[in-house]
Amino acid sequence: MSARTGILYLVSGPSGSGKTTLCRRLSNEDEASYAISCTTRKPRPGEENGKDYFFLSIPEFQNKIATGELLEHAEVHGNFYGTLLSEVLNKLEAGVDVVMDIDVQGAALVRESKHPIIQHSLVDIFIMPPNAEELRKRLTGRGTDSQEIIETRMRNSLDEMEHWPKYSFRIVSGSHEEDYIFFKALLHGERLRISRHI
Amino acid sequence: MSARTGILYLVSGPSGSGKTTLCRRLSNEDEASYAISCTTRKPRPGEENGKDYFFLSIPEFQNKIATGELLEHAEVHGNFYGTLLSEVLNKLEAGVDVVMDIDVQGAALVRESKHPIIQHSLVDIFIMPPNAEELRKRLTGRGTDSQEIIETRMRNSLDEMEHWPKYSFRIVSGSHEEDYIFFKALLHGERLRISRHI
Repeated sequence: MSARTGILYLVSGPSGSGKTTLCRRLSNEDEASYAISCTTRKPRPGEENGKDYFFLSIPEFQNKIATGELLEHAEVHGNFYGTLLSEVLNKLEAGVDVVMDIDVQGAALVRESKHPIIQHSLVDIFIMPPNAEELRKRLTGRGTDSQEIIETRMRNSLDEMEHWPKYSFRIVSGSHEEDYIFFKALLHGERLRISRHI
Repeated sequence: MSARTGILYLVSGPSGSGKTTLCRRLSNEDEASYAISCTTRKPRPGEENGKDYFFLSIPEFQNKIATGELLEHAEVHGNFYGTLLSEVLNKLEAGVDVVMDIDVQGAALVRESKHPIIQHSLVDIFIMPPNAEELRKRLTGRGTDSQEIIETRMRNSLDEMEHWPKYSFRIVSGSHEEDYIFFKALLHGERLRISRHI
């Protein structure tokens, strides 16, 4: 196969859609490279700086916004999250596929990016839970959050789900295994797109 | 998964690319329905009318052109080949994916079709042999044709290969199994495209 530019695989979906599991597996199987996000939230136990996230202070984060170093950024639950443009471009130009696990606001900013490499590379997909009942079950199933947090997350998830028509592709979640087969097939299919070959 | 319109999977590639094997397997595995072509060439031993082709006389074929019943038609090696528009539309509207094993002239006519369902459904892919040496090996390997016919087919194949940049997707043929995995992945990925869901 001839050389090609990388795909920017932009993956959104509410909490409980299973999108993070899909993205991690894609990265673990070396199908795509995880775009490490920046965040101002505090590290959770076991999270490593530069691996799970780049953990930044609020002033550091605001400086990166000001200097145009971020491809996208958003505030979620009181914390900032964002992605370094350089982190993504370097990989795409080297022909590496990049997977971004991103909320709907962030995805909208990436779509609005005028950078030609970003525009050329973008494949956006929305992962949906099959229905509200299953979503509630998945959000409750974690067992780590209070009922109030679950209700807030449920409302946020349902709000976030309304954004699916802005995406090019959609998976309605079935089993983890099924979802992953479709998720990977789409990436493999997009690799065959002639406009990516250089 | 919600209801969707079918995909028109338009597959071209020179003799020796393996495209016919790919299309037949897709059909055999019920992933897509073969669009049966019309042709004026004589049936080969074992070929059945209405299964392998609709075998037509030249006047019958010309009548179908005149009445606009053909989605595409072309003359290849002195024979006419074509596809009934109704054959394709009925399947697409029923949500069935249609695979068309078609030469580059025919594919160009399908692309030019103004029919909105055809335009909406189209996914075109070009299958290429890895290189000229391997192509010659594959064309010779059949062992059923004279050297002169092989040379003609070789020239035709090399000419046909120049059309690949008109397609959206391309597979550079490796093993049959590898080719098929990519070929199916692309179809499965395209099924997730939101614009197909109704």
